[in-house]
Amino acid sequence: MNPKIGVIMGSSSDWETMKHACDILDELTVPYEKQVVSAHRTPDLMFEYAEAARGRGIQVIIAGAGGAAHLPGMVAAKTTLPVIGVPVQSRALNGLDSLLSIVQMPGGVPVATVAIGKAGATNAGLLAAQILGAFDQELAAKLEARREATKAQVLESTGDLT
Amino acid sequence: MNPKIGVIMGSSSDWETMKHACDILDELTVPYEKQVVSAHRTPDLMFEYAEAARGRGIQVIIAGAGGAAHLPGMVAAKTTLPVIGVPVQSRALNGLDSLLSIVQMPGGVPVATVAIGKAGATNAGLLAAQILGAFDQELAAKLEARREATKAQVLESTGDLT
Amino acid sequence: MNPKIGVIMGSSSDWETMKHACDILDELTVPYEKQVVSAHRTPDLMFEYAEAARGRGIQVIIAGAGGAAHLPGMVAAKTTLPVIGVPVQSRALNGLDSLLSIVQMPGGVPVATVAIGKAGATNAGLLAAQILGAFDQELAAKLEARREATKAQVLESTGDLT
Amino acid sequence: MNPKIGVIMGSSSDWETMKHACDILDELTVPYEKQVVSAHRTPDLMFEYAEAARGRGIQVIIAGAGGAAHLPGMVAAKTTLPVIGVPVQSRALNGLDSLLSIVQMPGGVPVATVAIGKAGATNAGLLAAQILGAFDQELAAKLEARREATKAQVLESTGDLT
Amino acid sequence: MNPKIGVIMGSSSDWETMKHACDILDELTVPYEKQVVSAHRTPDLMFEYAEAARGRGIQVIIAGAGGAAHLPGMVAAKTTLPVIGVPVQSRALNGLDSLLSIVQMPGGVPVATVAIGKAGATNAGLLAAQILGAFDQELAAKLEARREATKAQVLESTGDLT
Amino acid sequence: MNPKIGVIMGSSSDWETMKHACDILDELTVPYEKQVVSAHRTPDLMFEYAEAARGRGIQVIIAGAGGAAHLPGMVAAKTTLPVIGVPVQSRALNGLDSLLSIVQMPGGVPVATVAIGKAGATNAGLLAAQILGAFDQELAAKLEARREATKAQVLESTGDLT
Amino acid sequence: MNPKIGVIMGSSSDWETMKHACDILDELTVPYEKQVVSAHRTPDLMFEYAEAARGRGIQVIIAGAGGAAHLPGMVAAKTTLPVIGVPVQSRALNGLDSLLSIVQMPGGVPVATVAIGKAGATNAGLLAAQILGAFDQELAAKLEARREATKAQVLESTGDLT
Amino acid sequence: MNPKIGVIMGSSSDWETMKHACDILDELTVPYEKQVVSAHRTPDLMFEYAEAARGRGIQVIIAGAGGAAHLPGMVAAKTTLPVIGVPVQSRALNGLDSLLSIVQMPGGVPVATVAIGKAGATNAGLLAAQILGAFDQELAAKLEARREATKAQVLESTGDLT
Repeated sequence: MNPKIGVIMGSSSDWETMKHACDILDELTVPYEKQVVSAHRTPDLMFEYAEAARGRGIQVIIAGAGGAAHLPGMVAAKTTLPVIGVPVQSRALNGLDSLLSIVQMPGGVPVATVAIGKAGATNAGLLAAQILGAFDQELAAKLEARREATKAQVLESTGDLT
Repeated sequence: MNPKIGVIMGSSSDWETMKHACDILDELTVPYEKQVVSAHRTPDLMFEYAEAARGRGIQVIIAGAGGAAHLPGMVAAKTTLPVIGVPVQSRALNGLDSLLSIVQMPGGVPVATVAIGKAGATNAGLLAAQILGAFDQELAAKLEARREATKAQVLESTGDLT
Repeated sequence: MNPKIGVIMGSSSDWETMKHACDILDELTVPYEKQVVSAHRTPDLMFEYAEAARGRGIQVIIAGAGGAAHLPGMVAAKTTLPVIGVPVQSRALNGLDSLLSIVQMPGGVPVATVAIGKAGATNAGLLAAQILGAFDQELAAKLEARREATKAQVLESTGDLT
Repeated sequence: MNPKIGVIMGSSSDWETMKHACDILDELTVPYEKQVVSAHRTPDLMFEYAEAARGRGIQVIIAGAGGAAHLPGMVAAKTTLPVIGVPVQSRALNGLDSLLSIVQMPGGVPVATVAIGKAGATNAGLLAAQILGAFDQELAAKLEARREATKAQVLESTGDLT
Repeated sequence: MNPKIGVIMGSSSDWETMKHACDILDELTVPYEKQVVSAHRTPDLMFEYAEAARGRGIQVIIAGAGGAAHLPGMVAAKTTLPVIGVPVQSRALNGLDSLLSIVQMPGGVPVATVAIGKAGATNAGLLAAQILGAFDQELAAKLEARREATKAQVLESTGDLT
Repeated sequence: MNPKIGVIMGSSSDWETMKHACDILDELTVPYEKQVVSAHRTPDLMFEYAEAARGRGIQVIIAGAGGAAHLPGMVAAKTTLPVIGVPVQSRALNGLDSLLSIVQMPGGVPVATVAIGKAGATNAGLLAAQILGAFDQELAAKLEARREATKAQVLESTGDLT
Repeated sequence: MNPKIGVIMGSSSDWETMKHACDILDELTVPYEKQVVSAHRTPDLMFEYAEAARGRGIQVIIAGAGGAAHLPGMVAAKTTLPVIGVPVQSRALNGLDSLLSIVQMPGGVPVATVAIGKAGATNAGLLAAQILGAFDQELAAKLEARREATKAQVLESTGDLT
Repeated sequence: MNPKIGVIMGSSSDWETMKHACDILDELTVPYEKQVVSAHRTPDLMFEYAEAARGRGIQVIIAGAGGAAHLPGMVAAKTTLPVIGVPVQSRALNGLDSLLSIVQMPGGVPVATVAIGKAGATNAGLLAAQILGAFDQELAAKLEARREATKAQVLESTGDLT
């Protein structure tokens, strides 16, 4: 099946974070592709990726990066597909630099930013699925079912408070 | 035409910010509705709004709030539609509290967060349109045309550097 | 004895922090209940809990959560009982996000916020007891006695400065 | 009627903030007293105030201060009554210093901290009333009625989004 | 004379800041060019500018931008000329976002970052001149003379302390 | 010999930091005393200590505390001796709360604040000695000699850059 | 009378802040001198000033600076007299940069840091006087009298809470 | 070959960071020297180093320091050579203090600041080489080749996403 979601990241060291996005897409059987695309080390590849994505059937791009994280915003500048940015936790500033570099985009070029680190990557996968699910009842139903399962886990977990 | 985008905000004082989202939707002729829905002052209304949104044909919700901004995240907890959160600039902490309250969602319930204040509200409108545009070629074309127009403005603006 | 204090938390992983609140209530023999109630994963349960609390004899609610911590504020929106919020230390931002998400509530819906992490949870237990103790001389006496015991420990601890 | 709430502040310049706490207490006809008590300029008065408060029938103390804000925490060290701390917005650091100086109390001596500035002062008045209201059905009813009135205002305010 | 320094900025609204860089270059008679080049609105132009700069005789690029400031880092990714980044003061976060977005570059692609706002722009002009001056004794002498003049101003300014 | 410096700290757990102040005083043979004095757990002792210090021949007080660190400022409020405040590194906020709680004193009651943690404690010892040394040539000479020794260490340490 | 306190600042624009230090010294009739000494624009003068200060009878140096504020720390590196650092409020970062640049000195070279801005400058004057007052009973008595006067003002100011 | 780059650092403990700058210079065979030069412990040496650098043929100075990091700015005050500042990660504040102390220089004396820690040191080496490379085609070619090699590594690394 052709991928609908493109998951890219600035470095293979971001994979430890970004795999949580892919895990969600696997769980929901949303077809996706994954690739290392670096804003600073492969800028031309980044532009080509962003320009070609829509034509290849990609509907949402998930981009993770840390520090002066330019990948999500620059991809967003080269496509009008929705781009989800994941701030990867950085060494010195714990991802605050990543977050501000991704979320504080100027008017005209949005990036849908999620939380720093693993929780954010998980939510990037879910958000991508929710975007598709706004137009796909079957996927929406899967998402609702996942919510119900999560709720059940919470209800049981009070038993762990000992 | 039935609204596809629901624009909500925690207080009518947020309108000065959130109107920039509506301006974009007007410009792109994307049908939307707008309403004050307060997480803390009308919690039941908030839940009802979120639960009913998909059934009423809403495909994306834009929610703006400031300070301990719980509206976007709580709406997101009650629907699997994509929810875009706009951090409204707060008095004491300049919106840093709004931003962190919106973006740092736990894994399981994503909020697509944009920048603090006016630029963020503008981008919330654009992001909502881009989400629809991933499934609507006509709207995608409008978004591309808007980008071209913006580019032209930049090219001319070098003349203003005096 | 019916519980007077409700101790809730967003996840069973918060128990490592929140048990320090329960330890204090045990020490002072203040009756309490404890439960996992998640703002984002069990929003309806959260509302039901908050709405029913006063009727069940609860007089103070202690709510702990981390990151975009919406539990204390949303519970406070659904009850006029005093709600104490404990910011649980988060991974990336060390609880600064938790703190701001809890303390920066808009006018109208207060949350009594304590320190980030273990010290805050301990103090949440004490604050709940002090609230009861404002109307209960016996409990007030216990709290005074605890202060005296703490003072004695400090006086002795100078001997440890070697 | 004897005051049940003591409202104190570090300087008469804090009154512009702290009057919002008193406005709430006036609105709810909760008897209170107000006084300038400075941790740094009148430390002995501060200790005398805190020690005598319970004996004079005070049930909750509201203390506002800015910068290196020591008043709430030091009063809390000298009484086991519940103490609510209001971080007054400071000049250079916008109240972040006030907030951290008040909320980050060590285990053993809690301060119920509210938001920075006017919203916090309003909420300090409400929180004090909610504490009394946990033991006073009439006051609890007033608080519920106030919530209902606030809700009605929100519902009407959508009309202002123009 | 062919320009040796390229001064670019993300928006004509950055000119109020960036003109201070140009003022220095004018004062030192270092030939330069200036242009609006937006990372997000004219990404292709940005790449073309960066790629062509060395061939056109440019020796240093000064790039100013605010918020999620990607211009300096992306230009630096497309040239091995030294790139000086000026963080323009942003509305909500006072330029902290601009600073972190510019300075926290990953290993491999440096940006020579200066202070936020006007002082930074002034220093960008001086730094560019100092880079040229490392290979140009006449320019180095001008820079030394400027330092001497500044010193004299300081020595006189004690007279203003009244 | 009667102590000239009083070294106090809020908890015996601060000793790991504060011993570095005592090490300096030992090295310079400046007579001192050390004691645990807690602002929040032994407030009366704190006031007695501060009030009696000058009469007992103390000339400088060094006070270390973490979190909502009120000890240095409250001691300073009860004496006109110079008080040096050492921000102890806190768990969640790394001592930023300690620093702001100590340094941001209102006009009228100064605290001489040093760096967070070990370096600050070392410098507190040195600063106390420098204050005495402003009136004691022998001690001043020791401080100069210590500087010379430090300089020599630096000069040698280039050999370690391998 | 020979000056005992040297008040220096990095720029004549700092005078608006630093005059509050001088006002205190005037009020207490402590002899002082004042001068603009810039770390970055007159580095040699700074070193000469610091080296000569003790020999000229100066006993305490007060140094104010903003931004990357190097004056207090560098003066402290060139003298063993006590140096008080005043962080002047900076434009973009409100003095947080000034504060950290002054207070976070490495072990070996202390700077006695006070609060950002006017309150800090006032306290620098008082701290300098308190240092002299540790060895001068008459000055100590003046400082006590000033405290008493301040206390009286606080006691009266409750009348202003209307 | 005479060194063209001077690499200095405030302490031998900074070597773990600063060696990454030297590794780059070794890789590119740019001649350099390295030395411990402390702003606070060897201030005179620092001035002598800065004053003599140009005369000895140094064309760029790289200076690393942490905390209240004054070395880069003070060296910059004593030479008109370009100075690159590396903020070394500090213990308590993770290098935010180092960064602000280095980058927020006043107008007149620029420091070319790079990222906190290892990435910054690597980039300091590259930036120094890029400055030389603006006037040296052979070195520019080496830098371009290094970029190409880096690009190739990125392209291969997608294979690691498993």
